[in-house]
Amino acid sequence: MKFSVHVEVNLRPGIADPQGATIERALPKLGFAGVSDVRVGKSIRFVLEADDEAAAREEVEDMCRRFLANPVIEEASIHLEASERLSV
Amino acid sequence: MKFSVHVEVNLRPGIADPQGATIERALPKLGFAGVSDVRVGKSIRFVLEADDEAAAREEVEDMCRRFLANPVIEEASIHLEASERLSV
Repeated sequence: MKFSVHVEVNLRPGIADPQGATIERALPKLGFAGVSDVRVGKSIRFVLEADDEAAAREEVEDMCRRFLANPVIEEASIHLEASERLSV
Repeated sequence: MKFSVHVEVNLRPGIADPQGATIERALPKLGFAGVSDVRVGKSIRFVLEADDEAAAREEVEDMCRRFLANPVIEEASIHLEASERLSV
């Protein structure tokens, strides 16, 4: 089965976010008021072939721990969706 | 009203994605098989104060066009959610 995977990697609360701070400082100067708490993360989308949803989720969680996110300062949220069933 | 805004900025289809290509090459070497079509984008979350949802959406669309995304090579998808109603 093929799964559409979306992993969102964000800095953990309390970890300084210089990209977010820069956006927050820049927006009022461009005329956009009322913006606060800007946080910037990564959005990673891919297609994963796995036997079933449990196996797919386990593989993606392992990827996040080992490679896609730095668990010391980042947290990853995972969204999985079956995108295509292979004909058997 | 306060809105929780989530903007996902992705490269348009067809635009080369070196970050995604690097992840796609690296994963099999780490033992993760069956991964394809890796695309990496930005995830921007913030709180916006606006009169109503229509005004909030218009402001965020304008931000995306002028600042958060490069409309030549990137597309932005916007998710808005009322997070708190100010007491009147």
